[in-house]
Amino acid sequence: MQGIREGDRSALARAITLVESSRPDHRVEAAALLEALGPPPAPSLRVGITGPPGTGKSSLIEVLGLHLVGEGHKVAVLAIDPSSTVSGGSILGDKTRMAELSGHPHAYIRPSPSGEGVGGVARRTREVTAVCEAFGFDVVLIETVGIGQSDVAVTDLVDLTLLLVPPGGGDDLQGIKRGVMEHADVVVVTKADGDLAATARHTASDYRHALHLLRAHTAWEPPVVTCSAVAGEGIAEVWAEVLRWKAHADADGSLAAERSRQAVAAMWAEVRAEVEQQVRAAAQGDDVVTALEADVAAGRVTPHHAAAQLLARRTP
Amino acid sequence: MQGIREGDRSALARAITLVESSRPDHRVEAAALLEALGPPPAPSLRVGITGPPGTGKSSLIEVLGLHLVGEGHKVAVLAIDPSSTVSGGSILGDKTRMAELSGHPHAYIRPSPSGEGVGGVARRTREVTAVCEAFGFDVVLIETVGIGQSDVAVTDLVDLTLLLVPPGGGDDLQGIKRGVMEHADVVVVTKADGDLAATARHTASDYRHALHLLRAHTAWEPPVVTCSAVAGEGIAEVWAEVLRWKAHADADGSLAAERSRQAVAAMWAEVRAEVEQQVRAAAQGDDVVTALEADVAAGRVTPHHAAAQLLARRTP
Repeated sequence: MQGIREGDRSALARAITLVESSRPDHRVEAAALLEALGPPPAPSLRVGITGPPGTGKSSLIEVLGLHLVGEGHKVAVLAIDPSSTVSGGSILGDKTRMAELSGHPHAYIRPSPSGEGVGGVARRTREVTAVCEAFGFDVVLIETVGIGQSDVAVTDLVDLTLLLVPPGGGDDLQGIKRGVMEHADVVVVTKADGDLAATARHTASDYRHALHLLRAHTAWEPPVVTCSAVAGEGIAEVWAEVLRWKAHADADGSLAAERSRQAVAAMWAEVRAEVEQQVRAAAQGDDVVTALEADVAAGRVTPHHAAAQLLARRTP
Repeated sequence: MQGIREGDRSALARAITLVESSRPDHRVEAAALLEALGPPPAPSLRVGITGPPGTGKSSLIEVLGLHLVGEGHKVAVLAIDPSSTVSGGSILGDKTRMAELSGHPHAYIRPSPSGEGVGGVARRTREVTAVCEAFGFDVVLIETVGIGQSDVAVTDLVDLTLLLVPPGGGDDLQGIKRGVMEHADVVVVTKADGDLAATARHTASDYRHALHLLRAHTAWEPPVVTCSAVAGEGIAEVWAEVLRWKAHADADGSLAAERSRQAVAAMWAEVRAEVEQQVRAAAQGDDVVTALEADVAAGRVTPHHAAAQLLARRTP
């Protein structure tokens, strides 16, 4: 705690490793650390960055991060890859992908921790964010990976979400799902340079049209901007839209309300995780539970029926 | 139940609507129906179809579905869009997107139900699949949507997963995350026709190389095939790879083992959902809980600390 308050980066790294650990004794220490750190003096702006593979998320984060440290911000980059339950992380390490940013004294890049089932990644990421805020990072960029296989509701972890989309033809519109659009606060068409510049402008126009149809009656109609990480163009514009969003969400109170909602949701998520652990612990070595599991595994009993029987036993 | 056993399609639609409903009285009726239907006589082959937006998932499902009904299969198509917590569904209705397949007497297409928080979509989809199996569908194609914002572990709902990827340059390799690859059993490069045919072959080769590095020591190295929904090419080859996968997974026992694991996981998911509901119900109207929620919402207390206090009260 001392090291984190004093800005010691090796203390930061050790604290995050502790918080990410699932060893029971580490969990106890992590809980004590989080307790000692308490609520952050000032919350950071947490920006989710999402989009399909190959859209250039890492490249954008690198140039956006450098832009922000250049403006005097302290920037933490966290990556979540909840779909990777086996070994975590990307093929190329995150630090390799963001070479210049990772070397900057006011930036910190944390590769994706390996997942550990429902809610685990969200819980860890929330805790790592708290440590980063205590350390003094005022912008936290959270990159998410995974296409439809995640178990993390990233929207519960961030203030706003940038949806990155690659330049692509008009027939891509059928691929724009309501759900994805509903959670985007700013849409960024990437790779808007060279041969793709014109296509990117068309794509931006398509998304603008779709968003207008979908979100015309909502308080915030997400802007669509184009940018090029390679050419370094449009980066300031992306951040300007983020700040415009923040001004809007501050003014109408939605940012504060959403942060309150997230904190309460996080409390209940903790309770849920703990209760589940207790139910499982109580079931261990119980012959009736073992027999029911065997029946379900063999297809003799439906999961639904077995769950009802288990629950009937719990409340005598 | 009678109607479903007799192959009455309007009974099927009513049953699915019932199972998808979250009205408490409907939940009771749905539980009774699932109980009455019991375990299916023969499980269907459940194929997950995933991939980034604009990859052509719907187009592939349409031609693959028509291929399968042509071979005598009965095919149900379910769509999951867990990222859509607000209103569910795609911009274009699923039936519009799969016009010919939806009209076929041996096919049934069910658009995405709207989500209702953690686990809700998975629970409903599992139940809808059970109804479809009872009706006699022997292939269930489950399309998933959402890029990193879902809370459904789709791999818990399907036997195998087809990962669809669009033709794209070699720099896309940095976008291929381990997590996504680890869950793919067959990789399909779509839109392999016309101008994109050569690019698609290159992309397939890139993925083959990446998969070889990642999965060389696993029992099943996912094949990579190219196909074109528009030209109707490669569809039989996609299905041949699915059947080759099934033969492999039957032979080494992994299919049966995985289905057992999923059933037990589903039982625990039911238990978890029920226990959570009980904890929340018990907390309602409790002044201490209300005060803690207010403290957390205002940022005076961390979620972690409040959860510990809530749990300490539960176990006196």
